[in-house]
Amino acid sequence: MTSRADRDAGGDIRSRKLRHIEACLRHDVDYTTRTTGLERYDLPYSALPETDLASVDLSTRFLGRPLRAPLLIGAMTGGAELAARINRNLATAAQQLGVGLMLGSQRIMLARPEVTSSFAVRDLAPDALLIGNLGAAQLNKGYGAAEVLRAVRDVEADALAFHTNPLQEAVQEDGDTDFRGLVGRLGEVIEAVPFPILVKEVGHGLGAGVATRVAEVGAAAVDVAGAGGTSWAKVEQYVRYGAVRHPELAEWGLPTAQALTEIRRALPGFPVIASGGIRTGTEAAKALALGADVVAVARPLLRPATESADAVRAWIENFLWELRVALHCTGCGDLPALRALNLAPPAQ
Amino acid sequence: MTSRADRDAGGDIRSRKLRHIEACLRHDVDYTTRTTGLERYDLPYSALPETDLASVDLSTRFLGRPLRAPLLIGAMTGGAELAARINRNLATAAQQLGVGLMLGSQRIMLARPEVTSSFAVRDLAPDALLIGNLGAAQLNKGYGAAEVLRAVRDVEADALAFHTNPLQEAVQEDGDTDFRGLVGRLGEVIEAVPFPILVKEVGHGLGAGVATRVAEVGAAAVDVAGAGGTSWAKVEQYVRYGAVRHPELAEWGLPTAQALTEIRRALPGFPVIASGGIRTGTEAAKALALGADVVAVARPLLRPATESADAVRAWIENFLWELRVALHCTGCGDLPALRALNLAPPAQ
Amino acid sequence: MTSRADRDAGGDIRSRKLRHIEACLRHDVDYTTRTTGLERYDLPYSALPETDLASVDLSTRFLGRPLRAPLLIGAMTGGAELAARINRNLATAAQQLGVGLMLGSQRIMLARPEVTSSFAVRDLAPDALLIGNLGAAQLNKGYGAAEVLRAVRDVEADALAFHTNPLQEAVQEDGDTDFRGLVGRLGEVIEAVPFPILVKEVGHGLGAGVATRVAEVGAAAVDVAGAGGTSWAKVEQYVRYGAVRHPELAEWGLPTAQALTEIRRALPGFPVIASGGIRTGTEAAKALALGADVVAVARPLLRPATESADAVRAWIENFLWELRVALHCTGCGDLPALRALNLAPPAQ
Amino acid sequence: MTSRADRDAGGDIRSRKLRHIEACLRHDVDYTTRTTGLERYDLPYSALPETDLASVDLSTRFLGRPLRAPLLIGAMTGGAELAARINRNLATAAQQLGVGLMLGSQRIMLARPEVTSSFAVRDLAPDALLIGNLGAAQLNKGYGAAEVLRAVRDVEADALAFHTNPLQEAVQEDGDTDFRGLVGRLGEVIEAVPFPILVKEVGHGLGAGVATRVAEVGAAAVDVAGAGGTSWAKVEQYVRYGAVRHPELAEWGLPTAQALTEIRRALPGFPVIASGGIRTGTEAAKALALGADVVAVARPLLRPATESADAVRAWIENFLWELRVALHCTGCGDLPALRALNLAPPAQ
Ligand SMILES: Cc1cc2nc3c(=O)[nH]c(=O)nc-3n(C[C@H](O)[C@H](O)[C@H](O)COP(=O)(O)O)c2cc1C
Ligand SMILES: Cc1cc2nc3c(=O)[nH]c(=O)nc-3n(C[C@H](O)[C@H](O)[C@H](O)COP(=O)(O)O)c2cc1C
Ligand SMILES: Cc1cc2nc3c(=O)[nH]c(=O)nc-3n(C[C@H](O)[C@H](O)[C@H](O)COP(=O)(O)O)c2cc1C
Ligand SMILES: Cc1cc2nc3c(=O)[nH]c(=O)nc-3n(C[C@H](O)[C@H](O)[C@H](O)COP(=O)(O)O)c2cc1C
Repeated sequence: MTSRADRDAGGDIRSRKLRHIEACLRHDVDYTTRTTGLERYDLPYSALPETDLASVDLSTRFLGRPLRAPLLIGAMTGGAELAARINRNLATAAQQLGVGLMLGSQRIMLARPEVTSSFAVRDLAPDALLIGNLGAAQLNKGYGAAEVLRAVRDVEADALAFHTNPLQEAVQEDGDTDFRGLVGRLGEVIEAVPFPILVKEVGHGLGAGVATRVAEVGAAAVDVAGAGGTSWAKVEQYVRYGAVRHPELAEWGLPTAQALTEIRRALPGFPVIASGGIRTGTEAAKALALGADVVAVARPLLRPATESADAVRAWIENFLWELRVALHCTGCGDLPALRALNLAPPAQ
Repeated sequence: MTSRADRDAGGDIRSRKLRHIEACLRHDVDYTTRTTGLERYDLPYSALPETDLASVDLSTRFLGRPLRAPLLIGAMTGGAELAARINRNLATAAQQLGVGLMLGSQRIMLARPEVTSSFAVRDLAPDALLIGNLGAAQLNKGYGAAEVLRAVRDVEADALAFHTNPLQEAVQEDGDTDFRGLVGRLGEVIEAVPFPILVKEVGHGLGAGVATRVAEVGAAAVDVAGAGGTSWAKVEQYVRYGAVRHPELAEWGLPTAQALTEIRRALPGFPVIASGGIRTGTEAAKALALGADVVAVARPLLRPATESADAVRAWIENFLWELRVALHCTGCGDLPALRALNLAPPAQ
Repeated sequence: MTSRADRDAGGDIRSRKLRHIEACLRHDVDYTTRTTGLERYDLPYSALPETDLASVDLSTRFLGRPLRAPLLIGAMTGGAELAARINRNLATAAQQLGVGLMLGSQRIMLARPEVTSSFAVRDLAPDALLIGNLGAAQLNKGYGAAEVLRAVRDVEADALAFHTNPLQEAVQEDGDTDFRGLVGRLGEVIEAVPFPILVKEVGHGLGAGVATRVAEVGAAAVDVAGAGGTSWAKVEQYVRYGAVRHPELAEWGLPTAQALTEIRRALPGFPVIASGGIRTGTEAAKALALGADVVAVARPLLRPATESADAVRAWIENFLWELRVALHCTGCGDLPALRALNLAPPAQ
Repeated sequence: MTSRADRDAGGDIRSRKLRHIEACLRHDVDYTTRTTGLERYDLPYSALPETDLASVDLSTRFLGRPLRAPLLIGAMTGGAELAARINRNLATAAQQLGVGLMLGSQRIMLARPEVTSSFAVRDLAPDALLIGNLGAAQLNKGYGAAEVLRAVRDVEADALAFHTNPLQEAVQEDGDTDFRGLVGRLGEVIEAVPFPILVKEVGHGLGAGVATRVAEVGAAAVDVAGAGGTSWAKVEQYVRYGAVRHPELAEWGLPTAQALTEIRRALPGFPVIASGGIRTGTEAAKALALGADVVAVARPLLRPATESADAVRAWIENFLWELRVALHCTGCGDLPALRALNLAPPAQ
């Protein structure tokens, strides 16, 4: 049942979501001074590998699903007409290339069921790992297992990711800023639903502390969504003020490499998605060598996704080609070999 | 009693003070190459805090007075007409926001009692922590407990801060450059007056050595006024030569973060004001996490203070909003939690 | 016997080789962000050496041949008319100055015997150490001892260097990317031929791991051809796309200084050529002090070589003069003294 | 007795010396990438010193002579008309301020006695410490005790400094590049003359090794003349080619701070002049705090010296004022206190 207030919220969200997309397309919303930290690692080049580039094998499994490459398209959008087009293009490419797809926040869909179709891309990607999305802070606003079940069922997703984004919400006008008691509520939801629940940031980084707490209540994986790529405290400032008024907030967060390595140390076997500023196959190779199960990429795919599935596919193919070259020239024929590299921590 | 020589000095001081304000408004008088060092610290971002931004509590006590936020408006001015306006605007804002106010040097007021009103803002800030100001070097020029008592009584202050500024005085034309024996004289004054005496620099930094010596003779607190913000060796060169002739002197001093941390180590429980280059709520949060009791901000408030109390208030509110976000997104609901963070020293 | 397919390949190679030369002359194909690492070492200046600049002795031996200076002209070209001119000029200068000469890849010569003359410069350099060149990856495409013998015999070389270049081949259109089993095949060739076989990279660096493996199967020396000079992943991108599309690949590799020092540590007495970004006599002196037997220089000699033997000689003489000054002002009268310096690893 | 060849050499030297002065006035001949290293040290600022700026005492003794400040005017010139003017202006200022004066190379004076007057400034500086100058390499060209005695006697100097400058000579056209056996010859001269002999570089640095060797044969002091200020390998390239063709040579040398500290460690009590890139009183204070007995400044005084003694005096007074401020604001009343500071080695 959708209340009047909820429907209104839906309208607000829709226009805010469009402003987000606009800001992401128009402004330089990447971090300016903070980097992912991946640039400090160096893949060991091998002048005489025991591999053939043509035979490098990128396949893996994640959350029980096979992937032809260790890549998820990052959570972005849904709701408006433009969002529907974006999601269709992403889903088509995901299916063709055998990579996963994370949907954008489905809160608007729960508020206004008529926009469900903008999220429902299972027909275009019957085999893809498909992950729904909701905000963790909503668990303090009345959401519970029922909403989560609906979100996943209505789009035939395989799993759902909760984004937890205190800085984004703080900077957002009228953001949801009460994060008290969420871990407990997450645990209740996880108990109540039959599919995996993931927890992700949106670009300011989720580290070992949070990963440990959500793993304890049953989360199936985390997505670090670390600092160094899209800064949501920056996007929200552009949306709110048309400028960056609080530069230090825009640059705040846990860098992707640091989030990843500290989680790997604390929770050796726990499934981790590395994202936040992953832009090239070389960076993906480093993240995987540091122990990520898969990587995710969001904003670089936004513009191609407004164009066509082919544009998305071209971007991803180029990305995966470089990833394959990276494996070959470190002498790694597949992902287990890459992970066994034991990348040295940066010298300096 | 005000002698003729004193009155003349008063006139000189007044015009010098105006030239200071002018230089501070017109030139870039911040350090160019030396920074506060706070930028090397990183607040630990928490993706899943146990806090609600709306409930973050900034209140604290300093020198026995309650503050709604851990902020003092830094010592700036007094004497001239413009100074009176500045002080009224600062005082009004201090009262409204529940923060403290440090007055500028009252030497001119002692020399020319008729300018007392430019300092006397107690009526506008009945509840604010109000701190008077005199130069420590004056203790070698005949000042003693009598002058200190008058300075505090005539403006109904709660305490008095002595500024000790050998580099500023050295660069100033006809500055007071005899600093011998001042600690002993400070001790005598402290013995003789019934209110707390603080010691502060003016932007070149006061470290553990000096803090220890003045704590031993009974000082109630120190204000590090460290390097990285306004450089008074630079201001004085602009006033004297219209240019910076001795760049290394302009860049000399103990950075704020270093002064603060070395004092915290040497004197764990001693009241410390962190100032010098504190420009944002994020920097304030770092200083507080490093153990400062409160922070002080001077020059950024100068221009708003020439405009209106509202302009001052707007600046401070924006500053405190960012401070609140910084607490929330590190998962700290109040200042004790922030101080317990135990900020790691910079990696590099 | 030259098959039709081979001849076609020959034509392709020839035009590709010309495009390489063109790219090397026109674009800035040096690494942009990665350096050789030699700049981090400092030659110890001696204000009072026990040497006379005029008597500094640069002579040495390499692969059993005497050299008047520890320099090889790097492997570059052959095949086309332009290439013939380049090789004649390089050979003439090598003979005059008593330095060595490495030829460019002779694959085209094996495919199209009529271009042999463009490589055959022994008449111009009867006394020079002359080293032939083939791609290691060809050993997976049918090449073996027979081809190697022909390559060396037809140009009267003293030795042959196999280049191993997985990154260059990966970026090259239709590159040879199967590097499996090459070490074994190298060993077989080495067994079968009566002259020394070297292994070199082409500018992305060959380190201790590969050096150890090829030393074990009998290689006579390695040329580190490290990162920091000409980046072949960059050259190939200019040739293929007219631009650098994969900047991280263009910047990938093991820096020359690092390759050299790790090989020196792993294989103390093994003959090593330091190359990749060696541009000045000072850099040569550092590489020799770090344990290189000789240095090699490729791209800086390309333009002079298109002009005249005199231009090549002038470049080398200037280079060797600086090398001599470097020895003199560190107080070293000859190369053994330079090597005994025991250059300290970089402070930072 | 002056031979014909000697006289010709004299003419050559004279015009070369003028070209040196010209190059030093016109081009930026300071090091570009290498610094003195003094910038890495920090004088400890004291907010509450026990000193009075007006009473800071800079007086000291060097080579048995009293100095009103620990400064020598660096060795520069002599021979031509312009040189005579320069030396007169320098000498007049030295006398007025009570600092020392090092003359430029007197080789030309030995070759052409008629130019002696351009060096003979004792009448203008009856009380100044006056130090003659010759090139150490001349000891391999027939010079010995006789020439040294004449050089000192004819200008009534107190001592003589031998400059040892293998890099400058190497870059200079027809430079004297035979440095073999010089330490022994130096020792013979030292034995044979009744005044102190110093050894100095000219801007590329003289470190602990050379200092130890010359101390052993009786040298009275060394002047490190370290890298970071005027680069003579740069000056000579401008004179010879009109441009810098060998940038690494122009940037080569032992930085002043490093030369000084390593000598202090090796020879704790040995008299040391710190020079090379000393440009301000702050830098002088650091060098003295690191253990230098006095500092020397050359090139910054060249232009004032072409103008007037007053211009020289103004430059030095400004320099000494900053030195005094540096002492005062570290709480040091005199040079022994400054030396006792025990400057911490740079953090990074
Ligand atoms: C246009 C856009 C919309 C996004 N919307 C969501 C969202 O609804 N839910 C979410 O969890 N993350 C969202 N994100 C965050 C991304 O999933 C990702 O965590 C973040 O952008 C960092 O990755 P990147 O640097 O590759 O962009 C969005 C990102 C973009 C660029
Ligand atoms: C215009 C102006 C006037 C000042 N006058 C005084 C003063 O009279 N007494 C004093 O102790 N400090 C004075 N200060 C120094 C400040 O209190 C403060 O220590 C210093 O400016 C560093 O802080 P900031 O970087 O936030 O400006 C003055 C600062 C300014 C900008
Ligand atoms: C125009 C050109 C052609 C080259 N051709 C070959 C080649 O055929 N075989 C080879 O082993 N290396 C070849 N190289 C690589 C060089 O031998 C050398 O390893 C590399 O350029 C790094 O050295 P540098 O930085 O001094 O140029 C070539 C280099 C250049 C500039
Ligand atoms: C114009 C000029 C001429 C110089 N001539 C001599 C000289 O004749 N003998 C000598 O020992 N040093 C000579 N020097 C070197 C200086 O004494 C000094 O060692 C060097 O310039 C480094 O100091 P600086 O950085 O303060 O210039 C000369 C320097 C200059 C600028």
